Amino acid sequence: MSLDPAVAAVRRAVRSALAGLPGPEEPSSAGVPPVLVACSGGADSLALLAATVFEARGSRRVVGVTVDHGLQEGSAGHTARVVQQMATLGADETVSVRVRVEPAGRGPEAAAREARYAVLEEVAGRTGAAAVLLGHTADDQAETVLLGLTRGSGGRSIAGMRRGFGPFLRPLLDLTRAQTEAACTAQGIGFWSDPHNDDDRFTRSRVRRHVLPVLEAELGPGVAATLARTADQVREDVEALDALADAARQEAAVAGEPGALDARVLAGQLPALRRRVLRLAALAAGSPGAELFRVHVLAMDALVTDWHGQREVQLPGHVSVRRSGGVLRFARGPVAG
Amino acid sequence: MSLDPAVAAVRRAVRSALAGLPGPEEPSSAGVPPVLVACSGGADSLALLAATVFEARGSRRVVGVTVDHGLQEGSAGHTARVVQQMATLGADETVSVRVRVEPAGRGPEAAAREARYAVLEEVAGRTGAAAVLLGHTADDQAETVLLGLTRGSGGRSIAGMRRGFGPFLRPLLDLTRAQTEAACTAQGIGFWSDPHNDDDRFTRSRVRRHVLPVLEAELGPGVAATLARTADQVREDVEALDALADAARQEAAVAGEPGALDARVLAGQLPALRRRVLRLAALAAGSPGAELFRVHVLAMDALVTDWHGQREVQLPGHVSVRRSGGVLRFARGPVAG
Repeated sequence: MSLDPAVAAVRRAVRSALAGLPGPEEPSSAGVPPVLVACSGGADSLALLAATVFEARGSRRVVGVTVDHGLQEGSAGHTARVVQQMATLGADETVSVRVRVEPAGRGPEAAAREARYAVLEEVAGRTGAAAVLLGHTADDQAETVLLGLTRGSGGRSIAGMRRGFGPFLRPLLDLTRAQTEAACTAQGIGFWSDPHNDDDRFTRSRVRRHVLPVLEAELGPGVAATLARTADQVREDVEALDALADAARQEAAVAGEPGALDARVLAGQLPALRRRVLRLAALAAGSPGAELFRVHVLAMDALVTDWHGQREVQLPGHVSVRRSGGVLRFARGPVAG
Repeated sequence: MSLDPAVAAVRRAVRSALAGLPGPEEPSSAGVPPVLVACSGGADSLALLAATVFEARGSRRVVGVTVDHGLQEGSAGHTARVVQQMATLGADETVSVRVRVEPAGRGPEAAAREARYAVLEEVAGRTGAAAVLLGHTADDQAETVLLGLTRGSGGRSIAGMRRGFGPFLRPLLDLTRAQTEAACTAQGIGFWSDPHNDDDRFTRSRVRRHVLPVLEAELGPGVAATLARTADQVREDVEALDALADAARQEAAVAGEPGALDARVLAGQLPALRRRVLRLAALAAGSPGAELFRVHVLAMDALVTDWHGQREVQLPGHVSVRRSGGVLRFARGPVAG
């Protein structure tokens, strides 16, 4: 019997991720660090767990972790089933954590995500894990890109999810959701479909259910994978420019005046770098990122490149910027006059 | 009677574009250079022409130019009507040029576009024009971004149309198509609807007719403007990285060996720059841009960052790259063994 191609694809992706971890060749005094797999009970994460158990066998312990956000009715029962399923799939250890989600001004989705990552990071620290594997696929990435694209805050908003950050890795980012479902089916793994995914009150659900299918129909199959690939390159670009902007900001710093910028040094920078430096300086001065728009950045930029004695620029959060003697100075607090 | 807001918006956009041109204050020996307006007979370009005539009155001659691609039946009659309409709207001079479109391997749309820009540039040169105004709107930009996004070649493909290049300017890039239609209607200007725009055989038509409306419905109104704004920022990023990559390429050049790159110098560059340099070097060596994909660039990159004595990398167009003595060398022609 030949191996199902979807199962093979998921295993290959996991193998490549595990190969990059500190492994059996470099054991610490505590032995080979285990790997964590975050599991919701959906096809993506169950296929990921099954592949991780297969690939890590004999060399590394696998810990399945599930988080109960307590947001949906019956979530405790669901969590118990996921725990059982993780054990059945061969996890050496299972952890389930119940969290209280405090929306605190954000949407419940954002609050749940934040709580989940905090738990995963905590469990990773406590178990000395080499990494936490997340099951996001190219479909998730395409949804993220489309959501970001319509936010209109430039490359950053369409850079999508990173392949890795902190202890987290996303080995399945090049696979489709359909592949993870096929992998589960081929291995007889029953998977859960989150009712939230079919709930059109969530923007992401509408993107998944209505927008991506139209893109696929009108622009050809494979749009999700293409969007995910675009995100990789845009993210690479944004990371480079952020790093270069950090350097440019130091170059434009004014000795003895933290936060002030030398406008004449800035003027010699490329627009993409100059505007990033101005944005960073405004954030540092206390202007809130969620309200600091392109129009504000361009107004600051005019102080640098189109200086004709104009008065100070007002930014969100009662921050103002004033140019005098070739130096930009940021101030916070209601400005008189 | 107060001025229609759409008419006011179009005029404001044109005024700002004209303000940036060499003008009455700095006349050359030949007098104030005229401004050209490219006109298809659609709402965008007629609203643009009417606004340009209004804003330039008394200070600058306005030349309306229309190009007959001869692709649609009755195009000669249509062109004659556009010429008449341009004169009625107050153009000081009208030019109509018939071109032969030679597809030559590209799609007919691309060939027509190329022929059109060549004619406009030629007329601009002959009339000593200060600029050629094009009527593209935020809707056109959003369509361009979406088309590029699904091509998956990174930031470059979603950077959209530039606001200006060579003699060309696009003053209406922040307005919607609906605004230009409203401006025409308010001024009693009858406009033409290109039947190609409703022809689902063209990908751009499908984006316009089926994709953008779904995005607007599911993600909220204003998606087109948001996409256009994202494009501005991504374009700025791409331009900065292209400029920096040019510099990085010169740094990595090997004295006496044109086209060769010092791998150890490259290794110190940020990934976004290093990979751009490798792509540029492959193009210079004769690998065709349309076939040179991310996977090829990453394979070259591995010669730089993951060197373990691997053999040469094969690129499209019978180009190969080999590393020896810390230097990458490109060769063209079928490679033996």
